[in-house]
Amino acid sequence: MKLTPEARGTFAIAPTPFFEDGRIDFDSIDRLTDFYAEVGCDGVTVLGILGEAPKLEGDESLAVATRFIKRAGRKQVIVGVSAPGFAQMRTLARASMDAGAAAVMIAPPPNLRTDEQITGYFRQATEAIGNDVPWVLQDYPLTLTVVMTPSVIRKIVMDSPSCVMLKHEDWPGLEKITALRGFQKDGSLRPLSILTGNGGLFLDFEMERGADGAMTGYAFPDMLVDVVNLSAAGRRDAAHDLFDAHLPLLRYEQQPGVGLAVRKYLLMRRGLLASMALRAPAVPLTDAARAEVDWLLARLARRDPRAALSPA
Amino acid sequence: MKLTPEARGTFAIAPTPFFEDGRIDFDSIDRLTDFYAEVGCDGVTVLGILGEAPKLEGDESLAVATRFIKRAGRKQVIVGVSAPGFAQMRTLARASMDAGAAAVMIAPPPNLRTDEQITGYFRQATEAIGNDVPWVLQDYPLTLTVVMTPSVIRKIVMDSPSCVMLKHEDWPGLEKITALRGFQKDGSLRPLSILTGNGGLFLDFEMERGADGAMTGYAFPDMLVDVVNLSAAGRRDAAHDLFDAHLPLLRYEQQPGVGLAVRKYLLMRRGLLASMALRAPAVPLTDAARAEVDWLLARLARRDPRAALSPA
Amino acid sequence: MKLTPEARGTFAIAPTPFFEDGRIDFDSIDRLTDFYAEVGCDGVTVLGILGEAPKLEGDESLAVATRFIKRAGRKQVIVGVSAPGFAQMRTLARASMDAGAAAVMIAPPPNLRTDEQITGYFRQATEAIGNDVPWVLQDYPLTLTVVMTPSVIRKIVMDSPSCVMLKHEDWPGLEKITALRGFQKDGSLRPLSILTGNGGLFLDFEMERGADGAMTGYAFPDMLVDVVNLSAAGRRDAAHDLFDAHLPLLRYEQQPGVGLAVRKYLLMRRGLLASMALRAPAVPLTDAARAEVDWLLARLARRDPRAALSPA
Amino acid sequence: MKLTPEARGTFAIAPTPFFEDGRIDFDSIDRLTDFYAEVGCDGVTVLGILGEAPKLEGDESLAVATRFIKRAGRKQVIVGVSAPGFAQMRTLARASMDAGAAAVMIAPPPNLRTDEQITGYFRQATEAIGNDVPWVLQDYPLTLTVVMTPSVIRKIVMDSPSCVMLKHEDWPGLEKITALRGFQKDGSLRPLSILTGNGGLFLDFEMERGADGAMTGYAFPDMLVDVVNLSAAGRRDAAHDLFDAHLPLLRYEQQPGVGLAVRKYLLMRRGLLASMALRAPAVPLTDAARAEVDWLLARLARRDPRAALSPA
Repeated sequence: MKLTPEARGTFAIAPTPFFEDGRIDFDSIDRLTDFYAEVGCDGVTVLGILGEAPKLEGDESLAVATRFIKRAGRKQVIVGVSAPGFAQMRTLARASMDAGAAAVMIAPPPNLRTDEQITGYFRQATEAIGNDVPWVLQDYPLTLTVVMTPSVIRKIVMDSPSCVMLKHEDWPGLEKITALRGFQKDGSLRPLSILTGNGGLFLDFEMERGADGAMTGYAFPDMLVDVVNLSAAGRRDAAHDLFDAHLPLLRYEQQPGVGLAVRKYLLMRRGLLASMALRAPAVPLTDAARAEVDWLLARLARRDPRAALSPA
Repeated sequence: MKLTPEARGTFAIAPTPFFEDGRIDFDSIDRLTDFYAEVGCDGVTVLGILGEAPKLEGDESLAVATRFIKRAGRKQVIVGVSAPGFAQMRTLARASMDAGAAAVMIAPPPNLRTDEQITGYFRQATEAIGNDVPWVLQDYPLTLTVVMTPSVIRKIVMDSPSCVMLKHEDWPGLEKITALRGFQKDGSLRPLSILTGNGGLFLDFEMERGADGAMTGYAFPDMLVDVVNLSAAGRRDAAHDLFDAHLPLLRYEQQPGVGLAVRKYLLMRRGLLASMALRAPAVPLTDAARAEVDWLLARLARRDPRAALSPA
Repeated sequence: MKLTPEARGTFAIAPTPFFEDGRIDFDSIDRLTDFYAEVGCDGVTVLGILGEAPKLEGDESLAVATRFIKRAGRKQVIVGVSAPGFAQMRTLARASMDAGAAAVMIAPPPNLRTDEQITGYFRQATEAIGNDVPWVLQDYPLTLTVVMTPSVIRKIVMDSPSCVMLKHEDWPGLEKITALRGFQKDGSLRPLSILTGNGGLFLDFEMERGADGAMTGYAFPDMLVDVVNLSAAGRRDAAHDLFDAHLPLLRYEQQPGVGLAVRKYLLMRRGLLASMALRAPAVPLTDAARAEVDWLLARLARRDPRAALSPA
Repeated sequence: MKLTPEARGTFAIAPTPFFEDGRIDFDSIDRLTDFYAEVGCDGVTVLGILGEAPKLEGDESLAVATRFIKRAGRKQVIVGVSAPGFAQMRTLARASMDAGAAAVMIAPPPNLRTDEQITGYFRQATEAIGNDVPWVLQDYPLTLTVVMTPSVIRKIVMDSPSCVMLKHEDWPGLEKITALRGFQKDGSLRPLSILTGNGGLFLDFEMERGADGAMTGYAFPDMLVDVVNLSAAGRRDAAHDLFDAHLPLLRYEQQPGVGLAVRKYLLMRRGLLASMALRAPAVPLTDAARAEVDWLLARLARRDPRAALSPA
């Protein structure tokens, strides 16, 4: 089922599981996919920035996406297709859709600067993948160095009817959600799903500002699901209580660079990944960092029993 | 008293108080200075990045620094003297020291890229201000875009005997503290005080990695003082408990751009600033953001009574 | 006389002359100013990027500007007032105008990214210096890292009636001139003087695209004057012949970083500067580079006798 | 025959020829390859930055490289293998060598900042492609934003015995050649071929500073060959005379962005490309720009008869 602007809930950003020797671990893909479904995720996003997508070859990318899609069944899978050129982007996008993806996700290349360059790029990208492919706009200035104002996002969305969702991870970003929702109220922006990233660091308030849910890779997507649901149900204090309990660990995991290793370590601790291996170039997890994560986990377990994992 | 490599504890980063019309509010400087001393800060750092230093004229900078210094009495004051050119840097540095500053702080200009450019810059800066002026090296890649490895920091410090402290705010930065302390253990780096910034977002672990204390502008420096002291006393769980209670608000304040407005708002709520005015260009605090800060304050007050402020 | 959108011709960008010990050499300012007038320049721009403006203190900046202004008499002087904050910008701008400057010049700070950030900055800058101060917009992405589209420039100009000139030095930039002149033809942009920089590297075609003249620091402003005049007179081949003769040297001088040392060396060779000294930080001229400049000068002298300088 | 540190002469950077519909034009590859050989080039470099490499899919890249290699016969072909990840880099590198390439070329990814990050990256890249694959280090800060000092280049070269050549295109870059040759004189750097790029803008002096030749895509490689040979023969004035004649056009072609369109237009005018088509995203050649190129060509033809092309 294709993604629509009505999408809401929690989409987990999945890592790409590797064995120690760098080969792709397809069994862990299955375990991850099942887990995301069990804890109540509404979908999965694969081959994102943290999915180590640039470290895969073209054939590998499609194989990973396909495995997630097949295993996910009726759950929606979004496939990251950002690429240095439109040829690769188109090939992966169309093959992924043929394999059953719900949508693709596109991030701007880092050399874009002006509003016109940005809107022009996404017009070309839409044309490249084809108007029939629903896509998610990724807005992540901290990592991508491309800054899009609310007006620019509006123009991109209005230029391209097949853009159905914003993966919002500007920082700070709360006012951006408010601005975009304001555009919709004044009629200048059509319906658009907004799921928030940034490791979840502001999920508590993002929901209150009007986000439709979360799309990030925090290793406790079960918490994301709960916060999104509590917030949607208007249970504000309960949402913040749960969120705050996770914040010390979430903050630790959200560090640039080393964050992915933390995440894979946690997913391994949770029994989902056979290995925490990353492909090079990678920032490894030191013993000191691992001990810090274990400490945070132990403290979290006092407030959320799901963090009471069996020893590493 | 001049700053030495033995410095430890908590140095508050002070904002520059303004009236609504943009004039400097010297009375609020006095109130801030007294407050920092009362809550147990060991010193104050003024005219830092968040002190809106670039928005002041040369005469204003010296007047602000002098007012803090005179009021601080025996407490140490560090004066930010980063400048586009060495002439201004030297003038403010020497005038500040003449007025009684304990040290000056220098950040690298954003155009530096290579290790040689960075070490060369600080050699010239040391020469410009004079070998007799103790100085603090500011390492803040997120904002300054200059990346210094531990080896580069070591070289800067070993090249310049008057460099006595590192204001550490790399992100992620825990391994950097460990690396620098390792250099000291292997004898390749001389004694150096390390105080950590980054809004305090990792203060809990920074202390455990070997930091000597905190130097940041979080609006509850009383919490910073306590966490630094608890951590130094080996009371690990108590330190984390207090830190975690503040983390939701601290994280909110640590947002780039808008963070300074949040900070000034909180300091006004605490009765220390007469106004939360910023000089242009500035990112204002929206009503929605103010309500979020109030919400976080109210939640924090349940765990730390110092956050039970009188209504705005 | 204040600068107007009707300005045309050649404005020399003047270096700031120093003695070997770093003091400002005011006598060389007089010599330079007289020379620019003698060779037919219509004005002088001081305290630009290549005027080492950031290396001066506030008092020095005004003293340099004032000396140029007093000596220039009826010739127009434009004063660079770019600064990290609006307070310094306003002070220098107003003091310069009081001293008799024709206009000030403002470059965008390097952290601006989006169209809205850029246009917002210049609205605030105009307000800061006052609506009565004519100003020149500097568009120099290579050095300033801020990219302004023709539409953004149009918005800045239309927002600010006191913006009277564009110092054009985008690279590549020919299409930008054409686009701006097109805006004027379609009525969406009011009259605006466009003088071109970039060391003069494309002056031949810039004039043909509609520029009003040159504003750059090439050490042979006499050539710039001639090319501007020949081109304005429609003597296309003669303009290119003269330009091409200078291109090997001009290209050498236009190198980032070392270019200023080349320029000061040439102006010293021409008897205008007492010293080629730069303030730190500076890229010095090696012996090999000096020999290359001498070689280029000697070759140029075969085609333009003004390059037949007495030995160094 | 594999590339060695003794390589010298002129290597043309080849564009990737496309038809108007975006398909690869293999016949034009053959024509280009023959032409480069006829005018005396010693080799060809394909899939470089200006070869629109990122716009090709994996299979296309190998097909283009293979076609050049097969046609080149005994002439050496260097294949650009820069990629966002080591997996793709390795695959293209090994397949190209299997197809008969002389070497591969690697540029640093734009996120590298510190000396350690840069040297670490190339150690990993060498390992990824295998120690048996000779490779060329591309140093192009203007486009790649990665700045490598001479010391860093030395470390990369000394760390990796299979690095046989530097494609030098720093700007300014003359002192870098001198520094590297100095390292070789003092014994700290092993033999290394240095060919220079940057569109050829400083070829005249680069040869005199110690470069072994040119590796760039100027549409008159016949001129590059002559200047390299004249300079190697010590005929300094003749080398500069020829170079200066081409400089107005060469400068025009060397503009970022639009330069590639200029280059393809000229190669089409020379009868080598069937079309000047670029793949999106691309900066097109306006009518005004085309007329300027024609003007420069006509003027060049007065001094170099090879520029007397048949009408467009």
